[in-house]
Amino acid sequence: MISPLSKLRKEFINNKLDAILISSVSNIVYLTNYSGFSEKEREAYLVILKNKQYILTDGRYTEAVKLLIPDFKLIEISSKNPVDKILKELKKKDRIKKVGFEGNNISFSEHKKLLNRFDDSNHQNFDFLRSVKTPDEIYKIEKACKLGDKTFKHILKKIKLRVSEKELANEIEFFIRQNKGDISFSPIVAFGKNSAIPHHKTSNQRLASNGQFVLLDFGVKLNNYCSDMTRTVFFGSPNTEQRKMYETVLASQSHAIQYLKSLIINHQSIPAKDIDKVARDYITSKGYETIPHSVGHGIGIDVHEAPHISPKSKDILKEGMVFSIEPGIYIPNFGGVRIENLVVLEKRKLRILTKSPRTLLTIK
Amino acid sequence: MISPLSKLRKEFINNKLDAILISSVSNIVYLTNYSGFSEKEREAYLVILKNKQYILTDGRYTEAVKLLIPDFKLIEISSKNPVDKILKELKKKDRIKKVGFEGNNISFSEHKKLLNRFDDSNHQNFDFLRSVKTPDEIYKIEKACKLGDKTFKHILKKIKLRVSEKELANEIEFFIRQNKGDISFSPIVAFGKNSAIPHHKTSNQRLASNGQFVLLDFGVKLNNYCSDMTRTVFFGSPNTEQRKMYETVLASQSHAIQYLKSLIINHQSIPAKDIDKVARDYITSKGYETIPHSVGHGIGIDVHEAPHISPKSKDILKEGMVFSIEPGIYIPNFGGVRIENLVVLEKRKLRILTKSPRTLLTIK
Repeated sequence: MISPLSKLRKEFINNKLDAILISSVSNIVYLTNYSGFSEKEREAYLVILKNKQYILTDGRYTEAVKLLIPDFKLIEISSKNPVDKILKELKKKDRIKKVGFEGNNISFSEHKKLLNRFDDSNHQNFDFLRSVKTPDEIYKIEKACKLGDKTFKHILKKIKLRVSEKELANEIEFFIRQNKGDISFSPIVAFGKNSAIPHHKTSNQRLASNGQFVLLDFGVKLNNYCSDMTRTVFFGSPNTEQRKMYETVLASQSHAIQYLKSLIINHQSIPAKDIDKVARDYITSKGYETIPHSVGHGIGIDVHEAPHISPKSKDILKEGMVFSIEPGIYIPNFGGVRIENLVVLEKRKLRILTKSPRTLLTIK
Repeated sequence: MISPLSKLRKEFINNKLDAILISSVSNIVYLTNYSGFSEKEREAYLVILKNKQYILTDGRYTEAVKLLIPDFKLIEISSKNPVDKILKELKKKDRIKKVGFEGNNISFSEHKKLLNRFDDSNHQNFDFLRSVKTPDEIYKIEKACKLGDKTFKHILKKIKLRVSEKELANEIEFFIRQNKGDISFSPIVAFGKNSAIPHHKTSNQRLASNGQFVLLDFGVKLNNYCSDMTRTVFFGSPNTEQRKMYETVLASQSHAIQYLKSLIINHQSIPAKDIDKVARDYITSKGYETIPHSVGHGIGIDVHEAPHISPKSKDILKEGMVFSIEPGIYIPNFGGVRIENLVVLEKRKLRILTKSPRTLLTIK
């Protein structure tokens, strides 16, 4: 198995680089296995050279880093030793000319301050780094999915008259944490009309009457790896229109999965956009509006990462990739349905990681 | 009271701009009062012109935006109508030449794709926008602090032998959410030696014996505004050295507060770095290492925002600013103490927003 650092170092040859500056927390986690840095503020950088690697961070983290990432040489950032000064010194000491960096992650101002001094700096897309998973990574995602399924089973018991969206979301979070997991994003709980807003912000609205969809979209983070699942259940008895909506989304997902399976048997790689198209076209063929989001996304350390299953994606699906398939129908002021499973492409096999039932569950 | 949009529009005159592109979620919340966008992915932009304003977002949010932000003209982002195309059209239609943007927020790649086409684009620091709070904003932070104090009181009851750091953190989160708040960041709970790591990642470690510090650093988000507080309590009976550490941090904070109060009476504005120095020097004067982080930070929609209370800060503290004062001492492999209060500078008055007791609480 090729190590994350070796994978990254291949870029040196491909792009004739002397060094790569890594700044995204997700790639820092991937390369160091240390996940203590905040996602919200810039607290660390990695500088990867051909034959050594540095970690730059401040005094709040030096103790942890020394203990947990001994194979990275620590350089402490302080007000007397700011990052631009450190990079200037490394440039001289390690004779760095051409630097690769994460163009999607480094801000305009950071680039100006830190990278302008290099003779040649080169923004790269590092999506390739994490899109194909190792068996160990797949195992971790699977474990996160299992806890997701367990959480879904648990939360079904809490759906009752007068409960609020926020109360259900809080219960989801508490249950996941009680089971030693973390959330991979703030759970979305949407009742009735709110389910027509694909990214509804969970509110204080209460389940006031039956006859409505309850959409639950949540994920677990366990050992740094994410799961993500959506189920839409029905509170009360669905009418014909509501049932048709649900069945259409379900069939759309099944079609995409079947199509994927049929291709895997003969092919090694599949254009991601084709999977998006199969799910999307099925929905519009039944007279509904097209899906207002991508049909799926890769998942791993980030809840959204490569590959992208969208109409304009250029990604090719390969063995070892883990991604969601999540078609939906949203009718403003009426309601919405989304069903989301994670799947993994294995050797001539598509394995479904989300095990919760997909058939319409009604709660009375 | 000057509105957020008017405040921003003053920049047009100061910098001869035709438009400002706002991309950070915090500034979007500040300008629209809508907080549904994810912090993790780019889901919306605002384009502010002299006499009108646009919001650019995709199909997942259009329903919510139409309903909740009617005074912003909605332009829907889709794969057929990507952001760069939208900006190109606005450039022509609204005759935009010089654009201001958030240099700390726009990525290098985004800038290349979206802003290179303008004759002149100008990265700005928009810190000024949110650093001085209105009475309404202060009231919201105060409410968040109140729930923080209530949470601290609640969590004290849960500190007992065998409890784990994660269990306490989970209880903090659940309690906050039960009280209709959200967390402003993942709570830090650190036992014993772990408290020597200023940003310890809450672990599964259990409180195995008495005779150790328990550091609790957490915050509430309520109505989009954050609180932030740290208390360090003692499980068991502190020895002389532990007591001295605690008393030194406490006195350092008191000195900084007293110094601030003495200046307010005579001055309108105070250099932030002076407050950092007073707290920091007191700690080193007692023979401890200097504080490995800033003494304080502004707070509001973001848990960390302007002003910055640090050795190199150029910020001037003014009436209406809300910020933390949080000195600490950290002794590797021994333990750490931090005490953090939020304060607000009012007309000739410093008001402490964090009301929990600061004296050393011992739990047996």
